[in-house]
Amino acid sequence: MRATTIHGPRDIRVEEVPDPVLAEPTDAIVQVAAGCICGSDLWPYRGENPIRPGATIGHECIGEVVEVGGEVSSFRPGDFVVVPFCHCDNTCPHCLAGIQSACVHTDGTASGQAELTRVAQADGSLVRTDGRPDPAAYPALLTLTDVMATGWHAAVSARVQPGSRVVVVGDGAVGLCGVLAASVMGAETIVAMSRHESRQRIATDFGATHIVEERGSEGFERVMDITDGVGADAVLECVGTDAAVATAFDVARPGATVGFVGVPHGVELPLRRMFSKNIGLAGGMAPVRRYLPELLDLVTSGRIDPGRVFDLTLPLDEVAEGYRAMDERRAIKVQINP
Amino acid sequence: MRATTIHGPRDIRVEEVPDPVLAEPTDAIVQVAAGCICGSDLWPYRGENPIRPGATIGHECIGEVVEVGGEVSSFRPGDFVVVPFCHCDNTCPHCLAGIQSACVHTDGTASGQAELTRVAQADGSLVRTDGRPDPAAYPALLTLTDVMATGWHAAVSARVQPGSRVVVVGDGAVGLCGVLAASVMGAETIVAMSRHESRQRIATDFGATHIVEERGSEGFERVMDITDGVGADAVLECVGTDAAVATAFDVARPGATVGFVGVPHGVELPLRRMFSKNIGLAGGMAPVRRYLPELLDLVTSGRIDPGRVFDLTLPLDEVAEGYRAMDERRAIKVQINP
Repeated sequence: MRATTIHGPRDIRVEEVPDPVLAEPTDAIVQVAAGCICGSDLWPYRGENPIRPGATIGHECIGEVVEVGGEVSSFRPGDFVVVPFCHCDNTCPHCLAGIQSACVHTDGTASGQAELTRVAQADGSLVRTDGRPDPAAYPALLTLTDVMATGWHAAVSARVQPGSRVVVVGDGAVGLCGVLAASVMGAETIVAMSRHESRQRIATDFGATHIVEERGSEGFERVMDITDGVGADAVLECVGTDAAVATAFDVARPGATVGFVGVPHGVELPLRRMFSKNIGLAGGMAPVRRYLPELLDLVTSGRIDPGRVFDLTLPLDEVAEGYRAMDERRAIKVQINP
Repeated sequence: MRATTIHGPRDIRVEEVPDPVLAEPTDAIVQVAAGCICGSDLWPYRGENPIRPGATIGHECIGEVVEVGGEVSSFRPGDFVVVPFCHCDNTCPHCLAGIQSACVHTDGTASGQAELTRVAQADGSLVRTDGRPDPAAYPALLTLTDVMATGWHAAVSARVQPGSRVVVVGDGAVGLCGVLAASVMGAETIVAMSRHESRQRIATDFGATHIVEERGSEGFERVMDITDGVGADAVLECVGTDAAVATAFDVARPGATVGFVGVPHGVELPLRRMFSKNIGLAGGMAPVRRYLPELLDLVTSGRIDPGRVFDLTLPLDEVAEGYRAMDERRAIKVQINP
């Protein structure tokens, strides 16, 4: 099959690789209807994470089950499914506690930017759609494999409540989905920190009540003005850099929680401030499977349309251009059609 | 008046200093009935915190109001009161959110190891007892000024629930009070990590179901055995050293929260583990005033007796011996009678 591989920083190729096979009786093979590029794919792309040259890359897709192992009982060929970026059995103690991303059977071998993908623990991992969706619905469904569930997890982790005053740090796809999540959860004030007009527009459509373009001390002052000098009840940190984390804790009020979902890179936490002001940190790799049924319902009922974060669609052969567009922030999120 | 002062590492003296005066109309002066030494007093004592030579030290006491400012309306001379270690107006947005330790009017000038102390924001800070208590009740009441409220805060921050499996790191007065708090909150399993027999005994009396003497990887293995390989639902970190914090995160299950109340010194957080396993961190300086009414009720009704953490009582003139005894871990907590 054709799949996206990475050979070094900024070296993305489409190559013929062996078709995935059922390695375990709990596996399924899914024919990818659409995949996409994740902000976290940019870490290895930029050389910030180690790379194994020639490895496949990509972990978000939707598609049709074409083969199942002998122990898969809930799915069969023909089912159209959403594939969460991390697989899980959904029965271990960590899954039952809602942390499917720490499943004892997690297996991260999916490749979403390809023609086929292997899904481990298919019964636990996959969620079926109601029939084969129209391709117009693909973008919204694709967000459920990662970014929408991750933005949702940021809001849950930050303990957003009805009436909360929320700040979202980061205007990537996850940050924008975080705005949408906070809005669905009834936040009263939602501040999106963004300097890009196209992203500001989506943030506003998703429910942001305020846009703050400033950063550093000016950004802090703007948030303090908006929150009557108190700070935010809940902060969604959707970037993972040291500067973004610092901003998140700066704007948090005493007793607030920072919900973090950006993979941390070079972050030093302000432990003294956290202690003296009782500002907590919660979150991490999103347990996508936990939220999938609820989010799928919100999407199929038309209550939310997170698919708007996609602003570029490319055929698989042009996936390298998709990486370039996201790296240069010309695109928020890129759909890849195999 | 006579007060405890610190002149350098391990240089504690009792000296004549000016009596405290009403500096603000919201102040009260309290005649100390009993004070005590806090584990956090040992940081400057050991030279780990900066010292202003000759400064008074100590921040925990109970006693009788002897003078109030013109704007104090809820207290009058003769009232017997519990003095939380940090003062607060109990009306600002941070107080109303339950983070009285971040009150916009916090003023840390109390001196509890002395004959008199000034209490800022008396109306907000103080809590009255029902008449003048018998001196036999002083130890339990003294714990409410700091250690019992702090152990309680650790348990609240770690989100201890009925049925929780809890690990308490630290067998000082705060850790022991954390065990008691977890027990009152209905935890099913409470593991006290302690190597001192006298402290183990109190931990068991306070509700610990298991004692783990081992540290490092052996301690981790013991906790895993006790929790069926899953880890703790909630961890109370009551020390503040890097080793204690590392242990706390090691034994936490995915999705758990570490409630930290030990003042952090030289701590590096395991951010990668926190992210990949969704282990949160919450807590900080305890909002004592928030918990005081509830805890006072638990003490006066006889439901809890946290006063057992006191195992040495000294007159004010011998306060330096009290510091030595706590520094050398010969005493858990020392009551000082002026």
